[in-house]
Amino acid sequence: MAELTIAMTGQPEGTHVTAIVYDETHFEEQTLSPSDDWTACSNKAGVIWIGVTGLGATWPLELAASCFGLHPLIQEDILNTDQRPKIDHFANYVFVVLKSLSHDKAQDTVLHGQVSIILGPNYVLSFHDLDHDTFGPIRQRIRHARGRIRALGPDYLMHALVDLVVDDYIGTLEYLGEQLEALEEEVVEHPTKGTLPQIHDMKQEMILLRRSVWPLREVMGSLARRESTLINDATIIYFRDVYDHAFQVMDTIETFRDMLSGMLDIYLSSISNRLNEIMKVLTIVSTVFIPLTFVSGVYGMNFRHMPELQWKYGYPVVLGIMFFVLISMLVYFRKKHWI
Amino acid sequence: MAELTIAMTGQPEGTHVTAIVYDETHFEEQTLSPSDDWTACSNKAGVIWIGVTGLGATWPLELAASCFGLHPLIQEDILNTDQRPKIDHFANYVFVVLKSLSHDKAQDTVLHGQVSIILGPNYVLSFHDLDHDTFGPIRQRIRHARGRIRALGPDYLMHALVDLVVDDYIGTLEYLGEQLEALEEEVVEHPTKGTLPQIHDMKQEMILLRRSVWPLREVMGSLARRESTLINDATIIYFRDVYDHAFQVMDTIETFRDMLSGMLDIYLSSISNRLNEIMKVLTIVSTVFIPLTFVSGVYGMNFRHMPELQWKYGYPVVLGIMFFVLISMLVYFRKKHWI
Amino acid sequence: MAELTIAMTGQPEGTHVTAIVYDETHFEEQTLSPSDDWTACSNKAGVIWIGVTGLGATWPLELAASCFGLHPLIQEDILNTDQRPKIDHFANYVFVVLKSLSHDKAQDTVLHGQVSIILGPNYVLSFHDLDHDTFGPIRQRIRHARGRIRALGPDYLMHALVDLVVDDYIGTLEYLGEQLEALEEEVVEHPTKGTLPQIHDMKQEMILLRRSVWPLREVMGSLARRESTLINDATIIYFRDVYDHAFQVMDTIETFRDMLSGMLDIYLSSISNRLNEIMKVLTIVSTVFIPLTFVSGVYGMNFRHMPELQWKYGYPVVLGIMFFVLISMLVYFRKKHWI
Amino acid sequence: MAELTIAMTGQPEGTHVTAIVYDETHFEEQTLSPSDDWTACSNKAGVIWIGVTGLGATWPLELAASCFGLHPLIQEDILNTDQRPKIDHFANYVFVVLKSLSHDKAQDTVLHGQVSIILGPNYVLSFHDLDHDTFGPIRQRIRHARGRIRALGPDYLMHALVDLVVDDYIGTLEYLGEQLEALEEEVVEHPTKGTLPQIHDMKQEMILLRRSVWPLREVMGSLARRESTLINDATIIYFRDVYDHAFQVMDTIETFRDMLSGMLDIYLSSISNRLNEIMKVLTIVSTVFIPLTFVSGVYGMNFRHMPELQWKYGYPVVLGIMFFVLISMLVYFRKKHWI
Amino acid sequence: MAELTIAMTGQPEGTHVTAIVYDETHFEEQTLSPSDDWTACSNKAGVIWIGVTGLGATWPLELAASCFGLHPLIQEDILNTDQRPKIDHFANYVFVVLKSLSHDKAQDTVLHGQVSIILGPNYVLSFHDLDHDTFGPIRQRIRHARGRIRALGPDYLMHALVDLVVDDYIGTLEYLGEQLEALEEEVVEHPTKGTLPQIHDMKQEMILLRRSVWPLREVMGSLARRESTLINDATIIYFRDVYDHAFQVMDTIETFRDMLSGMLDIYLSSISNRLNEIMKVLTIVSTVFIPLTFVSGVYGMNFRHMPELQWKYGYPVVLGIMFFVLISMLVYFRKKHWI
Repeated sequence: MAELTIAMTGQPEGTHVTAIVYDETHFEEQTLSPSDDWTACSNKAGVIWIGVTGLGATWPLELAASCFGLHPLIQEDILNTDQRPKIDHFANYVFVVLKSLSHDKAQDTVLHGQVSIILGPNYVLSFHDLDHDTFGPIRQRIRHARGRIRALGPDYLMHALVDLVVDDYIGTLEYLGEQLEALEEEVVEHPTKGTLPQIHDMKQEMILLRRSVWPLREVMGSLARRESTLINDATIIYFRDVYDHAFQVMDTIETFRDMLSGMLDIYLSSISNRLNEIMKVLTIVSTVFIPLTFVSGVYGMNFRHMPELQWKYGYPVVLGIMFFVLISMLVYFRKKHWI
Repeated sequence: MAELTIAMTGQPEGTHVTAIVYDETHFEEQTLSPSDDWTACSNKAGVIWIGVTGLGATWPLELAASCFGLHPLIQEDILNTDQRPKIDHFANYVFVVLKSLSHDKAQDTVLHGQVSIILGPNYVLSFHDLDHDTFGPIRQRIRHARGRIRALGPDYLMHALVDLVVDDYIGTLEYLGEQLEALEEEVVEHPTKGTLPQIHDMKQEMILLRRSVWPLREVMGSLARRESTLINDATIIYFRDVYDHAFQVMDTIETFRDMLSGMLDIYLSSISNRLNEIMKVLTIVSTVFIPLTFVSGVYGMNFRHMPELQWKYGYPVVLGIMFFVLISMLVYFRKKHWI
Repeated sequence: MAELTIAMTGQPEGTHVTAIVYDETHFEEQTLSPSDDWTACSNKAGVIWIGVTGLGATWPLELAASCFGLHPLIQEDILNTDQRPKIDHFANYVFVVLKSLSHDKAQDTVLHGQVSIILGPNYVLSFHDLDHDTFGPIRQRIRHARGRIRALGPDYLMHALVDLVVDDYIGTLEYLGEQLEALEEEVVEHPTKGTLPQIHDMKQEMILLRRSVWPLREVMGSLARRESTLINDATIIYFRDVYDHAFQVMDTIETFRDMLSGMLDIYLSSISNRLNEIMKVLTIVSTVFIPLTFVSGVYGMNFRHMPELQWKYGYPVVLGIMFFVLISMLVYFRKKHWI
Repeated sequence: MAELTIAMTGQPEGTHVTAIVYDETHFEEQTLSPSDDWTACSNKAGVIWIGVTGLGATWPLELAASCFGLHPLIQEDILNTDQRPKIDHFANYVFVVLKSLSHDKAQDTVLHGQVSIILGPNYVLSFHDLDHDTFGPIRQRIRHARGRIRALGPDYLMHALVDLVVDDYIGTLEYLGEQLEALEEEVVEHPTKGTLPQIHDMKQEMILLRRSVWPLREVMGSLARRESTLINDATIIYFRDVYDHAFQVMDTIETFRDMLSGMLDIYLSSISNRLNEIMKVLTIVSTVFIPLTFVSGVYGMNFRHMPELQWKYGYPVVLGIMFFVLISMLVYFRKKHWI
Repeated sequence: MAELTIAMTGQPEGTHVTAIVYDETHFEEQTLSPSDDWTACSNKAGVIWIGVTGLGATWPLELAASCFGLHPLIQEDILNTDQRPKIDHFANYVFVVLKSLSHDKAQDTVLHGQVSIILGPNYVLSFHDLDHDTFGPIRQRIRHARGRIRALGPDYLMHALVDLVVDDYIGTLEYLGEQLEALEEEVVEHPTKGTLPQIHDMKQEMILLRRSVWPLREVMGSLARRESTLINDATIIYFRDVYDHAFQVMDTIETFRDMLSGMLDIYLSSISNRLNEIMKVLTIVSTVFIPLTFVSGVYGMNFRHMPELQWKYGYPVVLGIMFFVLISMLVYFRKKHWI
């Protein structure tokens, strides 16, 4: 099962650790390596954000665990990239696991990843299994003191990270929505053999998406209901906003699933209708010519005594009869709305 | 995703802001522009209703936000026209987002819009993304002091707005119900090729409707359970009434969905039955004439020694045999209820 | 939507108002008209029951509202015959809306109506939109002091009314159950073209029934949980009994729906099986005669040099070969279990 | 509806009433008749169990009601054999209605019955609408003081009765499970015409079973949660055990339903696959011989000037061409994997 | 029903009882036989784990029951190998029943078993109906004092056992996931006759799996919510972790079910598409040659007066007409996209 979904996950090639310490007036950025003094870093004043991308190497996880006193199970959960989205409340920190989705425009595929976030009293730790700087825009906002991020605490930073993950979902769903619209047009206008596997792929993609997103609701709900004291009153409204977005993502996935079911029905009916049309042509051509062939066969018999054969107008009369039968049948089929 | 549903939304062409201040005895109406003094307006005695239609320009939103002290997230939610219906309780006001539906008789289409309503201690703000005076009838009722609207506070005004939105749903569903009935008759009486896409369109429409309406229930429930102190005891019964209507709308949509599923089954069966009938004709014609053709083929062979060919009554005997075979087969098919 | 269901509702032709006042010893019955003094009536000692059938005229509603001090919304709900079954608890009274179903044996159809009941401290008001004396049997029981009805209060009277409505459901379902059984036998024994529309009609009927009955459960539940102080301890057991019946009605509808789905599957399979049988006959007849026809065609060719044609026993040999081919094919098909 | 299920219920032929009074040391058994003194019986020390089988006569019910002070509604519920399984808590006793199922090995059918049990402070009354000594084994256990039944109170006796009913479900499901296995083998190995009605019957049986068993869960849950003070702490664990069994029965029914759906899919696919195979034979035989027949038809024409006819080797050449066409087509079909 | 699932269960051949007593410093291991003094064993200091594999003999169960004072129902539940997963809280101990799944690589099948675990204040009893040392790895960990298992109490030991069972589920699902992937590829690339039974088998397997795993959630939830005082604060986080895994297992099964449904749709469509292609070939060949055969039949008639037959170029003209008809039809079919 792990293999099944990991197959869709990018390779963790490198591991990068960036530490940022900031408050309303100061800002400090540093790339951490195993030889750096993490404890010094974790004791600084202000909000501390240590962001890890790529889980190829495990030293950032081990150093963070010992430095911030994390429970051993958390390390296991972060490394198990087939984890279900969940939230765990510990005494001093909150641990959140999310699935990340991003649309890689270059390769036109959807990348699945896993983001783990730990919120402590004065720090946020983020781990992303993809070596992809997803949280770059937030680092920019902090660096240039854009928006309210510098004025608020680590809970708002966590909100910003989660919000970005959910926004990526919405972006990915917009992309999938465009594909869906194109597919629907194809289904209604000119379905081909290749349409069925496409619908199938979209359905399987939705099944996997749903599995990633469904538990998100309860994670978000737990944050929005403020079950942790680490989240301030002023921030709660922002988490409620993300909660609404998560709901919207779920709704959209369900809507897409319903639409795909409808499209499958339409596709199968179109294919079946087309077969009907072909069948009708066969019916009409066969039904018209088989009796005529029989008539010609009768007068092709070699009996010695067949008076009609000797008649002067036998041939044109038979041709006339055949023509009459042909016209009658066509008129009959027309009346039955078969042609 | 946003694109997907916005495609169904009308263009926000112009932006109109109407301010109404009223109590039981006074009534004042004014069109606001960016240069007007909004603060003066917001301090007046009585119920203040500022209605904005069309969200092309953002100044009404910004002025309202600063004037009534709205949270920045509210502005974002109002402008994001792909918002999910929801209710947010703030310290001093309640924020409600609804989807509006209206049946445009001229173009025979269903218009989807978004209505945001903010209820404060003495004011109501309404924002509609369509440039369409949906709330005109309420303005008329206030202007001419019809009904109890002038006697009651802003909570009753909010109820009137929400009620109108839900009533539009019912009207739209009546229109769709008529279409559904026509479609059902078509399916049962004389299904054509065009019937399937129509059923499909109705189903997709229902999926989108359901998505708009489903969250309405909890919004209405929250209002009817009186979770906000801004709603008075006397008004709560009116909200409960709207809550019942919202439930009725949901029921109707579910009923329509069930009916459409039934109609799809019937349609596919009819099409398949029709194919059966055509197949039967083919079967009978072919099955009857193919053996006869074989017989005529036998006596069309050119063997030198074929005694039957020399018989005086060979030809009529063979014709008689053929006729007998024909009749036997028809009788057999008749007995089998195939014709 | 309103139109959709009202189409199934009988015409409100006349309006009849009957007032009954009774206690254990006294009984008084009166037909009320607009000119009567309703207030006098509403002040009498004992249990007062005012029953209105047919909502063509609105004066009974208006007089009752003013006399018993009903909320204006109640009047609207009673007149809106597309109301969803519901219960509303007011300070002094309980308002219940139900759907009535009755099987009209004369016309062999199911009549849909709406019953509104208001239970006050010493009165019961009932409104039925059909001009049909549904509650006649209860009036008889009161008149002749049968059962415990005269000994108990207005809450027991209300129970009697509701019980009668639910009993009509059970009666209607028994009638539909008989139709269903007949339909099932038809489907299994000898399905015809007309079977499909019948299944379809039953399914649509069930969808509408379900919509009427589903909310009944919560109405009954609210009464059985004794959320109103107007219902006495002694009566609660009777409401619990009706609650059980309502559940039973729901179960039966769900069971019927499941059965109809099963019958549709069987019907479609039967039709498809029948096509298979016809196809098989075609296959066999064509497959058997087409090769034979080819053989006869070969010896119908006019080549000058065809040695077989000159052979003395050519003709019987060819006939023998044909016969052998025919038998071989039939044996092969037999072995394949195709015939 | 009543008729629908009663049709499956055995005839209540006779009515037998057995009274047992026991405690740890004493045991007394008696057959009661209308003329016996029931009150004397109900006042005896120890656990009193009055068991009624067959509801053809109503005197046991009436005598029990007056003797133990039962509510009139209980009598109605016991006699209405289309009652839904339910539990009602009264002041002095608990009333439980269950559906009984038993597999009649002689007739190879499943018998549906109704069991009503009333648990009082020192008595248990049981009513079974079938004239069938279902509870015989328990009477044996009491008579011979087997197990802990003599040591415990009426609540344990009630548990024993309920447990027997649920065990009969499990037995019946085992029997149905064997039938299902046989049916599955038939579907996969050699489906026949009769398979479809069998699947249909099993499905309908499951729908009815589910309807009988589903409410059992809440009945059992109510007993296991010990909502009645008539059930002792020591007995509660036994009710919890029955509750688990009821859940298991539900699970099994749902599993059987899922399996039957799967089998229907497989059956329909098999039938359709078989049609495909027959169609393929038709296709190949027709497609191969129709062109050859055309060729022979060409050389059967009677034109005066047809040079090929005069050629010495015309006939064998044409036969050769025909053979070549035949082989080419067969090779083509082979390559396409059609044969 | 019992038979149905037991058919999938391995034979309980032998019965082995291993007793382990350990604390942080000591470790003792012993194989118990009926003649050993169990009471001595159960009084030892430290954590006592008695593990029974294979339920062929019942003496370990009886000795354990008398030694640790177990309720008689527990013995029945352990021996009934068709038990539903459940948890029962007793005064001094907790009783848990689980289904075990393991992938037997040698025989390439999935083995279903039943694990019963009893957690007491200082002991854990485990019963596995398969004679298979599932819990060997845990015994190793204790023996060699690997991990934290020696430092923590019996609740942690129970967690380790449960965790192993759930991990086996994940392993089995990985194996099934690989099979599913292979099957999907087969369905999309080259579906054969054997594909349908395979999909069917996988579906039935999933139905059975779901039935085993679904109740696991509530068992795990009960443990993770710490409804028993036998579980310490420090261990609760580990149970929460297993709870997450159980959820993940459920999600995966549901995902597999959805995928299998999708695959069945695709398979049926592929088969139907293939039939369409074969039908098209038949249509085209028949439709092309039947009219041509008719023409040749006309000129094979033996009328004395057929002027065309005498024309010098009659034959080539007719051949030309035939050729023209052939080409026209092929062009028409091409234009219709039928070939």
